[in-house]
Order: sequence, then C-alpha cells, then structure tokens
Amino acid sequence: MAYMQRRSNCPVACALDLAGDKWTLLVVRDLLRGRKTYGELAASPEGIPTNILADRLRRMVASGLIEATAYQDRPVRYAYALTEKGRGLEEVLSALARWGKRHIPGTRVFPEFSSSSRSSRPGAR
Amino acid sequence: MAYMQRRSNCPVACALDLAGDKWTLLVVRDLLRGRKTYGELAASPEGIPTNILADRLRRMVASGLIEATAYQDRPVRYAYALTEKGRGLEEVLSALARWGKRHIPGTRVFPEFSSSSRSSRPGAR
Repeated sequence: MAYMQRRSNCPVACALDLAGDKWTLLVVRDLLRGRKTYGELAASPEGIPTNILADRLRRMVASGLIEATAYQDRPVRYAYALTEKGRGLEEVLSALARWGKRHIPGTRVFPEFSSSSRSSRPGAR
Repeated sequence: MAYMQRRSNCPVACALDLAGDKWTLLVVRDLLRGRKTYGELAASPEGIPTNILADRLRRMVASGLIEATAYQDRPVRYAYALTEKGRGLEEVLSALARWGKRHIPGTRVFPEFSSSSRSSRPGAR
C-alpha cells in the first residue's frame, strides 16, 4: 500500500495525511466539475505546476481517491475519475467554500459551480 | 497584510492558501479542544515538530485565525485562542472527521471529541 506512516489514528489527521496540502482538494474540485484529462486538470485557474499535478495524481491513485483509465495508446493518455472515496470529499470542499466565502473578502465561486448554472448548463466544464 | 499572493478568487483555493497543509487544521482542532499554550499544542499525539508549530502559529496570527495574548513575562509566554474566523473552521474539521471515519479504516475519535464525553466533562481537555 502507498499509505504513508500515520501520525495518529485521529480521523482528521488521517484525512489530512491524504488531502492536507494546497492542491489535492483543487484536483478533486476540478474532477467534480467534469474535468478528466491531464490537460484539462493542468488548465486550472490556479496554474498548478505540471510536476506537482503529476505527483498529486500518482498519490491520489495510490490512496484510492481517483482511478486512472487509459483512453489512448501511443502515447498512452489517461482519464481520471473520482472513486466513491474521492467523491466523499465533496462535503469537505463545500465546507471550505462556505468558510472562504464568509471569511475571505473578494472570493467568488466559478460560474460552473453555482447550482443554478450547473442545472441550466449540465455539460459545461 | 501577511496574506500570500492568491492563486485565484475561488473560495476553496483561498481557504487552502490559509489552511491547506498537514498541520494548521490540527492546531485548530487542539484549540477547539481547549488547549491554549505552546506547550499544550506541542503535546499533540501527532508530534508536531516545534519549528513547524512556531511557524504555523505565526502564520495563523497573521491570517487572522488565532490571537496571541501574553500571560507571563520573563520569559514572555503566549496563550493562543481562535478568532471567530478560526472557529469557523470547525465545520471543515467536522467534514474531514466524518470522511476519515467513513473511508480510512482504523481511525478513532479522541474521547475528548465525542459529544457525549464533551457534554459530561465540559472542562476536559
């Protein structure tokens, strides 16, 4: 298994062992928004460095948050999808978004993320 | 202001700018549990390195998550307390704890954190 050594058995500490960094939950956010490929994920507005994106995708596969499926040979390319475990982080994202909107001035939700545009533009990425 | 450059205006990204690491939310957890001093915070079961604890406390003061009050001179010692902004992260912690308990085998909540012992031992740390 690719789990690192646990720091404790506290569920918060264990959750942060897997998702406690600046990027993993943004990759989860983008997969929830419908992005699938490395190129789509690399195009996040935060400008994730490609070496960090590759590292996070490897770790997220290893810790069971996402699954990779080859959709092309020569060169092989992968599509990424959240597992049930990874989709479960949506509740954490929602809590972070509520907190950010309340306490950090000037934040703004992506149009694709608001429930109204989500329902009116179901295919939007 | 001590805010770092924002990566985007997404509230999730902005929240992770302030709390997206392995330790900040554990310090919030321990302050919610009633720990106050550097020594009490350094005694977390995760064994936070003291240089990291000092750095996180500085950043958390700078970003308005906690306040420091001197409770002793010579040598000066500080007690730390969550601000309203910092206390707001309790919802994020709860979501992480629920996710950890559901998806990471073998996690277990501190006795001090369960609602039953909290209500029956209100002064427990």
